[in-house]
Amino acid sequence: MRNFVEMKENVTIIKVGGKIVEEEASLDLLLKEFSALPGRKVLVHGGGRTATAVAAKMGIETKMVEGRRVTDADMLHVVTMVYGGLVNKNVVAKLNSCGLKALGLTGADMDVIRSHKRPVGNIDYGFVGDVDCVNGEILAWLMNRDIVPVMAPLTHDGSGQILNTNADTIAGETAKALVPYFDVTLIFCFEKKGVLKDPDDDNSVIEHITPSDYDRLKSEGSIQGGMIPKLDNSFTALQAGVKRVIITRVGEIGKNSGTLIEG
Amino acid sequence: MRNFVEMKENVTIIKVGGKIVEEEASLDLLLKEFSALPGRKVLVHGGGRTATAVAAKMGIETKMVEGRRVTDADMLHVVTMVYGGLVNKNVVAKLNSCGLKALGLTGADMDVIRSHKRPVGNIDYGFVGDVDCVNGEILAWLMNRDIVPVMAPLTHDGSGQILNTNADTIAGETAKALVPYFDVTLIFCFEKKGVLKDPDDDNSVIEHITPSDYDRLKSEGSIQGGMIPKLDNSFTALQAGVKRVIITRVGEIGKNSGTLIEG
Repeated sequence: MRNFVEMKENVTIIKVGGKIVEEEASLDLLLKEFSALPGRKVLVHGGGRTATAVAAKMGIETKMVEGRRVTDADMLHVVTMVYGGLVNKNVVAKLNSCGLKALGLTGADMDVIRSHKRPVGNIDYGFVGDVDCVNGEILAWLMNRDIVPVMAPLTHDGSGQILNTNADTIAGETAKALVPYFDVTLIFCFEKKGVLKDPDDDNSVIEHITPSDYDRLKSEGSIQGGMIPKLDNSFTALQAGVKRVIITRVGEIGKNSGTLIEG
Repeated sequence: MRNFVEMKENVTIIKVGGKIVEEEASLDLLLKEFSALPGRKVLVHGGGRTATAVAAKMGIETKMVEGRRVTDADMLHVVTMVYGGLVNKNVVAKLNSCGLKALGLTGADMDVIRSHKRPVGNIDYGFVGDVDCVNGEILAWLMNRDIVPVMAPLTHDGSGQILNTNADTIAGETAKALVPYFDVTLIFCFEKKGVLKDPDDDNSVIEHITPSDYDRLKSEGSIQGGMIPKLDNSFTALQAGVKRVIITRVGEIGKNSGTLIEG
């Protein structure tokens, strides 16, 4: 028999990259799948491609270092407009037309995610925030009234400064902050079916990874590059009490496919 | 002795034009005054000047007809970015640094304000929404947890379409929708001290206007132009149960100055 502590509701946090919410066909598919998902849910989105396009139209150059956007004052205006405004509100309006009560949030709203400006090391990323804390209690309060948070990759420092923040990190930290209130599933959606054993073979999805598998796969060189921080993130979330992490793609959300990562 | 029905909490809805939130000095003054205001509160902001500036940088021409923005698809993107993102999130982050729990909202968020696209008459205003209904209940629920709604002048049609909507209208309709829950004061802030008897004399503020005063002032020609829709709006709000409307400027909010409009 399950005890009282285990009787928590489920929540699913889905992180989708910018490309998915920026293209109509994939956005429509995502909204359909996300709306159909049972239980409480949170959507975390990116928007980098649109930010780059809007910046270009405004004559602002996009600088990336190791896949991360350098965010000077002009670029901060652009990402605040694009992530917090254009992408977020369009997703919110569309989700509401699917019958959900979606609420667009940045970390600044109700102090949901507090961060600090990344210290300048070898690289000055500018107005980029590293997350200090996520207010899981207020998110749980909203969700218990059937509100669906839709989170843009922006946070604030508590002193009035908006900061650009990685969406994967926001998803992971939000998942951890919801552990006291829910049984948490974290889903990272990207363009591949899951974690691939052979990056060139779309059908080589690794169905299940445990911490010991992961160490072995890394030492064998089966998992490389951009997938390593995603998986490191996933295992950190599991250690913090998140029940499971799934790496999959839009079109297969909630279909028991992709890579399942469990402790 | 006051009866039970009258024992409602006070709420103040403050509408500020774009100019106030777009200039640092006036924004700081507004935030200070707004934070100090006792009781529940809502801020409704504009952002037209920034929208025009961002549009120009993106090579998008701003077209105004009778003081209202014509909102084609490109301009809708701009206002969604600027009102919902840039202006709204900066105000939210700054209010939170003043110790408030500010939450940025468009009408699309949680279906707070539903509107319909204005029918094409002599002029096609494009993606402009006329308000159908404001969900006062959800706003009251938020405010009863000390959350301060910060509303951008955007609504949605319930079918996924964002619509550009006049901020004065949003303030007036929100005030009316809160009547069942609060004793409502609506404050319109603009650049003048109040309604002026002589538009060229800043010290000719009319301190108090009742409906019968208004009819007389209009017939005498003392009140003209852009002030007429503002006052019409105010009297409509009073008829719907709003307790008082104040027309004033930043720097004098909550100071018992400006023009008081009562039923």
